[in-house]
Amino acid sequence: MSNVPFDAAKLNHVLEEAGIDAVLATSRHNVRYLTGGYYDHFHALAPRGGAGQYEAFVGIPRGRVDSAFYVGGGSEKRQLTAMPIWLPVVDVSGGPTGQSAAAAGSLLRSRVSEHATIGIEFPFTPADSFQALQRELPHVRFVDATNALHELRAIKTAEELAVLRRVADGVAESIVAAFRVGHDGVTTRDLSAVVAHQMGDRGIEFLWSFTCAGPSYLRAPSTMTWDRGQVLHLDCGGEIGDWLADICRMGCRGEPSTLARELHAECLQLQDEIRRWIRPGTPYGELAAEGEAALRRLPHAAIGRFVAHGIGMVSHEQPMIAPDSTRPLEAGMVLSVETEFLEPTVGHVKIEDVVAVTSDGYEGMGDLGRDWQIAS
Amino acid sequence: MSNVPFDAAKLNHVLEEAGIDAVLATSRHNVRYLTGGYYDHFHALAPRGGAGQYEAFVGIPRGRVDSAFYVGGGSEKRQLTAMPIWLPVVDVSGGPTGQSAAAAGSLLRSRVSEHATIGIEFPFTPADSFQALQRELPHVRFVDATNALHELRAIKTAEELAVLRRVADGVAESIVAAFRVGHDGVTTRDLSAVVAHQMGDRGIEFLWSFTCAGPSYLRAPSTMTWDRGQVLHLDCGGEIGDWLADICRMGCRGEPSTLARELHAECLQLQDEIRRWIRPGTPYGELAAEGEAALRRLPHAAIGRFVAHGIGMVSHEQPMIAPDSTRPLEAGMVLSVETEFLEPTVGHVKIEDVVAVTSDGYEGMGDLGRDWQIAS
Repeated sequence: MSNVPFDAAKLNHVLEEAGIDAVLATSRHNVRYLTGGYYDHFHALAPRGGAGQYEAFVGIPRGRVDSAFYVGGGSEKRQLTAMPIWLPVVDVSGGPTGQSAAAAGSLLRSRVSEHATIGIEFPFTPADSFQALQRELPHVRFVDATNALHELRAIKTAEELAVLRRVADGVAESIVAAFRVGHDGVTTRDLSAVVAHQMGDRGIEFLWSFTCAGPSYLRAPSTMTWDRGQVLHLDCGGEIGDWLADICRMGCRGEPSTLARELHAECLQLQDEIRRWIRPGTPYGELAAEGEAALRRLPHAAIGRFVAHGIGMVSHEQPMIAPDSTRPLEAGMVLSVETEFLEPTVGHVKIEDVVAVTSDGYEGMGDLGRDWQIAS
Repeated sequence: MSNVPFDAAKLNHVLEEAGIDAVLATSRHNVRYLTGGYYDHFHALAPRGGAGQYEAFVGIPRGRVDSAFYVGGGSEKRQLTAMPIWLPVVDVSGGPTGQSAAAAGSLLRSRVSEHATIGIEFPFTPADSFQALQRELPHVRFVDATNALHELRAIKTAEELAVLRRVADGVAESIVAAFRVGHDGVTTRDLSAVVAHQMGDRGIEFLWSFTCAGPSYLRAPSTMTWDRGQVLHLDCGGEIGDWLADICRMGCRGEPSTLARELHAECLQLQDEIRRWIRPGTPYGELAAEGEAALRRLPHAAIGRFVAHGIGMVSHEQPMIAPDSTRPLEAGMVLSVETEFLEPTVGHVKIEDVVAVTSDGYEGMGDLGRDWQIAS
């Protein structure tokens, strides 16, 4: 089928590697990924309702996308007609968790053998849904498909990269705008609200903001004020249609102290140095080791931390950077790269960037505002 | 314990009625309700991460709030110190679904008998979490506590009513503002974005907007335009900290037709008539019957529909208005009241209001904009 919006050959491969005969995806992000961007507009942000919550499924028997199906609720009928999805079978007899699972189980029963191995998303499949699947498919073996689906999504398409770039730019702009509202009495809760508002202005769903002001390690938005002379980090997440960015920038009300400047400069130095290793072919373990080595060369290494992890539809997805991994980076992978220092008199100094692996190196996404953001 | 933020006696009662020895709540809204407003700020809007998703628990053995506990993740430590919750035991060894469930199961094991009946939220407890609970508590009986928790929340406190009033007002204002942007070429997707933006301006989380323009029944925001002479309904949901409002208002680009005016007037007539029955003591069934009777008296009854349902932290919660229910309305209950007509030449004409039951009658919340909203 030519209208499949993901790499069907890769799906076959990852399912084969995991020993999975058919996959039943149900998390919002994986349903969106496998349908090619679709999700019930009513329940995308409001899953709960009545005695339970909404659930959709995409079912795909391995190697047979022509037998794939979608299960949703009756209220989606018109949306699905207006915005058709590629799946050959669209069943809207579901809706609430158990009901969707019964429909999905029944569709799957005619597509796999009685003792097949079915990959579900254990952390995203509600208990009543799981019980309904067990009733419909009493002899199959259920295994977790979460990592196989992470693997499927590891290499981002040009369209995905465009969305991720837009999100990263918008999150960085929102953070920079929030620093500007610094004034006497401003609380970290106020600042978080400004970030959320700024994201909304840019068509980005606000996800979170860590707001760490002054010599405190409290990162949750609160009634704590951002006072004159204090540094502030804003470490914020936002998304468009489940594609997210996670960025941290530093600000100060007035001039930062010499020590604060040093820590921030060391963040940037490491963040810039490590980018030279972000290119196709660098083994994950080498990236981790180079990050560690670069950190150790810094004056304040003892209170510092470096980490890199994949980001896309989930924070901490492929590439899963681990010291012992020999797997190489590939073009189209996207990383979240973080350097931070916790210093008791200054506070929590941190820079986090989104960096994509390109065919010949890297692309910093949302690089705005990496320098000090000085507020009045 | 005097600092319990909910009606502990009522919880005992609803658990006893359901034969539940201890409840393990895990949905965001019930965790928030039982903690008195707390939820991990990082995961409130971004539950997924890594190979799974975040999960919190509040566990309460029946009749023993002094043995209740909270389970969350390690990153919540400082937030919980800065914003302490009433629960006597706070365990942050959880985080991901299975891990939180293992911690919750272990805490519960020392608090209930081996063969106890445990109420969990089946539609909100992930499968891996459920399996971890089964491993920790191999001999207990798990039953669904969703309706018992609905029941616990049925009567809203003055604080809850204040939040619901604020949400309803803000949702109505956001809808009215969106109608004003009517112009040639405006799409229902544009209008939905304006509603979301306006809610954000008011500190309200956008949940959904049904946008039904002209003689079409497509309610999902799309590239469909709102053209001159067409009616439009905006049926939108928003929330603050899980307390939500759901409101529908009517607009028209230019003057609505005579038929459109008639249908809208009939909506208002029914919506106003039924309010006289919204007072303590009216049996649910009587409210439903009076709504049906009022609908039947209207000229366009044949294409009309009336429905009322409870709303609060969940759309469609107690009071569950059913024709055969003799249960009486009580002060502090909140209703969503809807009248609609589907007419093929006009479109979908609908008014939906939030109406609270007060000690001597009703309070319309967010009543702004019930008249025609005329755009250019």
